[in-house]
This record gives sequence, C-alpha cells and structure tokens, in this order.
Amino acid sequence: MQKTERVVVVGGDAAGMSAASQARRMRADLEIVAFERGAYTSYSACGMPYYVGGVVADVEPLVARTPQEFLKRGIQAHVRHEVESIDLNRRMVHVTRLEDGAALSEPFDHLVIGTGAVPIRPALPGIDARGIHALAILEDGMRVRQAVERDRPQNAVIVGGGYIGLEMAEALVMRGLNVSLVERGASVMNTLDTDMGDVVSQALRDIGVTLYLEESIDGFETDGGKVAFVKTDRRTLPAELVILGIGTRPDTVLARNAGIPLGETGAIKINARMQTDVEGVWAAGDCAEAFHLISRRPVHIALGTIANKQGRICGINLGGGYATFPGVVGTAVSKICTVEVARTGLNEKEARALGLEYVVGRIDSTTRAGYFPGAGKITVKVLAERATGRLLGAQLVGIEGAAKRIDVFATALHAGMTVEEVQYLDLSYAPPFAPVWDPILIGARKAAEQL
Amino acid sequence: MQKTERVVVVGGDAAGMSAASQARRMRADLEIVAFERGAYTSYSACGMPYYVGGVVADVEPLVARTPQEFLKRGIQAHVRHEVESIDLNRRMVHVTRLEDGAALSEPFDHLVIGTGAVPIRPALPGIDARGIHALAILEDGMRVRQAVERDRPQNAVIVGGGYIGLEMAEALVMRGLNVSLVERGASVMNTLDTDMGDVVSQALRDIGVTLYLEESIDGFETDGGKVAFVKTDRRTLPAELVILGIGTRPDTVLARNAGIPLGETGAIKINARMQTDVEGVWAAGDCAEAFHLISRRPVHIALGTIANKQGRICGINLGGGYATFPGVVGTAVSKICTVEVARTGLNEKEARALGLEYVVGRIDSTTRAGYFPGAGKITVKVLAERATGRLLGAQLVGIEGAAKRIDVFATALHAGMTVEEVQYLDLSYAPPFAPVWDPILIGARKAAEQL
Repeated sequence: MQKTERVVVVGGDAAGMSAASQARRMRADLEIVAFERGAYTSYSACGMPYYVGGVVADVEPLVARTPQEFLKRGIQAHVRHEVESIDLNRRMVHVTRLEDGAALSEPFDHLVIGTGAVPIRPALPGIDARGIHALAILEDGMRVRQAVERDRPQNAVIVGGGYIGLEMAEALVMRGLNVSLVERGASVMNTLDTDMGDVVSQALRDIGVTLYLEESIDGFETDGGKVAFVKTDRRTLPAELVILGIGTRPDTVLARNAGIPLGETGAIKINARMQTDVEGVWAAGDCAEAFHLISRRPVHIALGTIANKQGRICGINLGGGYATFPGVVGTAVSKICTVEVARTGLNEKEARALGLEYVVGRIDSTTRAGYFPGAGKITVKVLAERATGRLLGAQLVGIEGAAKRIDVFATALHAGMTVEEVQYLDLSYAPPFAPVWDPILIGARKAAEQL
Repeated sequence: MQKTERVVVVGGDAAGMSAASQARRMRADLEIVAFERGAYTSYSACGMPYYVGGVVADVEPLVARTPQEFLKRGIQAHVRHEVESIDLNRRMVHVTRLEDGAALSEPFDHLVIGTGAVPIRPALPGIDARGIHALAILEDGMRVRQAVERDRPQNAVIVGGGYIGLEMAEALVMRGLNVSLVERGASVMNTLDTDMGDVVSQALRDIGVTLYLEESIDGFETDGGKVAFVKTDRRTLPAELVILGIGTRPDTVLARNAGIPLGETGAIKINARMQTDVEGVWAAGDCAEAFHLISRRPVHIALGTIANKQGRICGINLGGGYATFPGVVGTAVSKICTVEVARTGLNEKEARALGLEYVVGRIDSTTRAGYFPGAGKITVKVLAERATGRLLGAQLVGIEGAAKRIDVFATALHAGMTVEEVQYLDLSYAPPFAPVWDPILIGARKAAEQL
C-alpha cells in the first residue's frame, strides 16, 4: 500500500492556506498540516487599518477561514505553533507549540513556505518601548485598537508614508487623535512620483494630519518603558502611540537557515510554478519573489492579492496539476478618506533605474461627465517607452470612482499594449460613469502625443 | 496661388465636429464648414435622460461646444441648416436654411458625413400623435422635459427596454409619473443574456416601473390628436406620454441617394481611416459602420464614445495625418438608480449566431471586501471560446462600483486574452475597492474551469 503523502505548510495566512486549500481540492489523498505562529488563519491584514479606525466593527469578519473550517475541508491548521527550523535532509520541520512550549517534529513530503513579510523595525534608541507598533499579524491590529480604546492616547506619530502609514493615519484621525506623519521622502507614497504623491500629501493635510516630509527618525524618548516622544532630525514630537510603516522585508529566516536559495531581492527564489530550488519545497506570497512583467526582473512586493494568486498556483502544482504565475505589474490602490490613489507598472524613478527612456502624459479630467452630479477631479499620469510607445506605467489620484480605473492600465501592461492602442480602447461610457473620453484614454493620448 | 481646400461637414454633433476640430488642429489652411439641422452642436445625447429626470438642471452643460466657440477655432458651424442632397459630380451639397427656407449650394473638396442615427418609428396606428416622443436630437429631450413640466402627465409608457428606455423610465419615475415599460423580449436590455437581463428587469420593478415583457405594441389611441392609450397585443395602457426606445437606424438617406456605398449592416461603409468608397468622402459616428474585433464583422453601434473616436480619426486623416480606428468590442454601460449594468464583447446569442462554441462562467461576489461597509452584490458572467479559452465577452450587474469593471474585460478583449490569462491579472486590491480576488478574476476563473 502506498504511503499517504504529507504536505506541511509554514504560515497560515493568504499564501499558505490558499496553497493548502487548492492542493486539497486537487488531491483528496494528501495529508495537509499547517502551522501558524499567530492565533488566526487566513485573515485580511489589509483590513487592519479599517478595524483600528472602527470602520470595521469586529475582528471576526477579517478572518476568512478559521482552523475549524479548514478542518472540515481536511486541513489541519495549528495556530500558535511556531516553526523553528527546517531539516531538508530528514524532511522534517521542528515546531514549538507556543501554548506549552512543547517541541514537535513534523515530517513532510512537500513543504510550502508561506512565512510572509515582517515590518522593518530600525535599531533606533527606544524602539522597543511600549506603544510602538508595527502591523504584521492580526493581533498587532487588535493591540493597536485596544491601546486606542483603553489608553486613549492623544498624540500619534506615524513613521513612514506608505500604504499602511497612510491608512493608519486616516484610522487614527477618525479616532480623534492628533496625528503626525514623518516621511523621509519629499512626498508620501513613494511608489508614486513626487508630483502625484504631492496630491496625496495634501489629502492627508486636508484631513488634519500634520506632515513632516524629508525628516528622519533619530529615536524615541520613553517614560516608564512607554513611548512619550518621537525624535526626528529636526524636532521632537509628543506621541503616546507610534505606528511603524516604513516597509516590510520577506521573512526568510527559516529558508535561509535551511539553505533554501534566496533571490537577488532577498526573498525566496521561486520559479513560475512556485517551486524553490529545493525539490519538494515550495514558497509563495510575501516571503517569495514575483516576476515583474515590465521591468522583467524579480521583485518583492508584499500584497495579499499576489499572495493569494501565488498560493493558489502553488496548490494546483502541488496537487499534481499544472499552473504558472504569469507575474505582476506592480498594481496597488489605497485611499485617504475621499481621495483615491492607485498605481501600476513603473514610475519615473523605476523607469530611470532600468535605463528606460520614457515620455509622460499627465492630464486632469473628471470621473463622470462634467455636468453629472458627483463628477470630481481625477489626475492621470501615463508613462510610455520613448522608442516604442509601449505603456510602462500609470498613476491615478482622484475622488471616488477614480482608482479602480488603474485596472485597465494593469491589463494593458499585461498585454504589452502601446499608448496608441490604449487611447482607442472601447471603454464604457455613460454620463454617470465617465466623460465620453474616459480619463484613461486622454492620459494615454497625451503620452502618445509626446512620442 | 493654391486654392484653399474646403471641408464640408454634414451633421454638427460628436462625429462631425470631432472631425472638424481635429482637422483644424492638423491644418490651419483648411476652410471648414459644418451644417446641422438642429439648433445645437456637439451636445451630449446620452445626457438627455438625466436632463429630463432633473438630475441635470439645465440644458447648457449638455452642449460641449457652441457654434460661437467653433467659430473662434476657425470652424463655421451653421445650425438649423438641413443638407438636402450631395452632388458627387459637382462636389456640392445642397442645403436648406431652415430659418427662411433659402436654398444654398456649398462646394466641397472633402465631405464628412456625420448624420448620426435616427430612432426607429414603426408605422403603427396613431404613431404621429402628440405626446409620442423619440430622443434623437437635444430638442427632443427638451420637448419631453417641457411636456413633463407643463402638461403634468400622470401615465407614461416606454416602448422598448434598451438603454434609452431604461434611463427614461428612471427619469420619469423620478418625476413622479406612473411608468410602464413594454418590451418584446423576455427581459429588458437585450444586449445582455436573459439571465442577466432578469436582474435588470427586477431593478426596474424595484423602483416602481411596471414591466410588460413579451408584449408588442399594436398602436396608439388618441384624443384630439394627442396620445391617450397604448395598445399592446395583450392590454390597453393609459398614457399621456410615450417614449419610443426601440432602437435606432443609421441616417443614410443622403449617402444612399448620392450613391455612396453602404455596408452589410445598412450603415455607411468605411475603412479604418474613415474613408468611404468615394474619394474625398468620409463618414464617422452613428451613420457609419465599425469593425467588431471579436465577431470580426462590421457592426452598427450608435454610441457617443465610438462617434467621438471615429470623428477624431477622420479629422486626423483629413488633416493629412495618419490614424486608423482599431475597432470596437461592443462595450456599454448604464444604471437604473443604484443598479449598474455593463456588457462587452459577445453575449450568448451573438456567439451562437457566429457559430462559436463557448463556455460560461457566472459568479456572484461583492464590490468591496465582504466586511467593508458599502460592499454589495455584483454578478459577473464571462464567455470564453471552448477550444481556445479566448475571452468572448462579459456582462456585469451590481451596485455602485460594479459596472466600470467592464473596462478590464474590454481591454482584455482588445488584447485577445484568454480567460486563463484574465484570471491572474494583477488588478488592484484594497478592502474599500475589491475583495482580494476581484470579481473579474473569479468570473474568468469560473469560465476557465469549464474549458
């Protein structure tokens, strides 16, 4: 009789559990066991700012699937279990059951690494004080909300103006705190060009966030082990609550220690089927690389939407099917109250770094027909390669209804379209939805005219 | 000295005036003269239902550009001038100045035909009674609004459940009328499949419209020359106001009489540069054909978005440039109060008529992350070719934020993508904007699973 094959999944969030679920659908005979160091599986990390802000009242809806639900599908998901090491020779992982410290050894035939990413915590004086939070797992979000509701802090400082920083700034403003945001760059949202980021910076100021741009953090002053002030290179800001939003790095400790090769980005190197360089070892999600279709290089982008896709593809292949991940184009979207912001492809800095010559089309238009109630401003910036007209990237800032338009550019990037092609796309039009020339088309035309 | 070349444009709306404007930008030396039988140039016909409903208060914002504004750009646009015939031998058009009946003869070197489409008015008993309106030009919309405000009709009947019928039904409900809609098909919106059209039918009922499906109009009973009742093959409905929304046909009388060839659709035959088969004679917009990229056949689709594109391309070529119209994929969007509806590509009936074998993916999802406030239902239907997986078309019905997603499918159709490719597109995700798997991706995946 053939032995049942055993799949061990390290990390119980988007990538790992998507892989587990998909592998189960493909092959009923697999034994599938997942270990998650936190208390929750398959939660929406992206929902945390909205939970902190109170837009989402309870934490339960953020959990897509509990261990009990996984068990019904024949997947054992053990929460509060930390995988300590991977032994590739003996095909085992060593696990600590956090509840009682018990050490478990778990054999595998297939290993899926879905350890995610960890927030960067710079080694600054006072960084370990209470009240300084980074958002990695769901419990982090719960702790911040608890701190807000229980300790009633008055002053919050957000360190870093990326998506998480922005969304947390909005959340804390909604909670009535005085919110300052310190960002090293010349504008927030450094995945946008500065001219577009400036619009977002202004949107933050408009909701009452005090911005300190081109400032960096020197450290934290504490009072009884609790943070009291944030020191920048220019000033000292009172803060009973600090949110670190200066980015993440892939959590590759286990992989590295086991000798599983990392890529040039520092994330785990995988092929299009989510296989690492080690037979039977797979990786997916925020700990792994993805291929960027426009730069044509591996990138590390920690986003749930990529993690879910990679996890699914991993599971199909692991289950004996065949699927490849085509890659990413760097699409992202966010909002600050009523201001929506989105980007895809390459921005100017990225294009320059790749030595690409480009033209820029930048236009202001409206989200609906100009005469239609609710029409509001949308700014579209389009980059195209100079010699070929090939679309390189796009950025959008505008009111409600603006941001999802980025998906057209994302699709056009996947298809390798030129801006000449984009400008005549048969996009939908009716006065409540768009001007007769959608802002997408005008942006592309403007870029085409620069060629 | 070289004689100034003279361009005559027949029809002063989207196609004709886009052509005129673009030709002017390309060549300062052209003499450009346009004739429009109505009183307005370059107006938004699509805005009329919203003007009738009072969502748009005044008529002026619907006019993108007046004859005075055109004159400043060196374009003479004569309103209330009807072109009676085209003399290709003498390169002249014969025009009646409607104000005084004067007959003018206008020479041309280039002729642009932008005569648009006319609403179908079936030869039924009583069809010419007062109170029976079709919406072709802006004055039609003004007359309906005037009738609503002055005569205070209580009962309106809409004939036909297409976009105009639906939007006018909403407008008249907003004006407090009892509105009935009579449609020959099994559901409204016959550009959707019946299963999707049913959702729209229900949305109409929900706002108080009485639907009579699978009924046809036998005629109208009048009272002193004014409509009083609509007779269907099943009942008699009281109606002091009737809106005809049973479609349009291209206005090709002038072209046909002049011997300018029409295509198989009955619209004017043009090439990708908007040239008719007659040297120096161009056509664009609702009177002309467009090439459908999926059926790979000429089609006649009367929509402002196509008319503007074709007009622009006509003007570039006419002005000595080079531009070709890639074609259309049949994208359209509308809404009934809070229910949005959109389509692109081929529906089932169209696919069958072309002999295409297809699979269907149909899913229900949400417009935002399920836990995010304002998330609502969206239904996505995707058609893919059986043998190849090539995307053939998509239909969407849902709450606010649903419909513009059709543009991703439209872009994917332009690119010739398969549903396997669509399912892994790097679309934007954040909880206020989409579930982590956008409904587009799930719909495409569902279709891919049927292959």
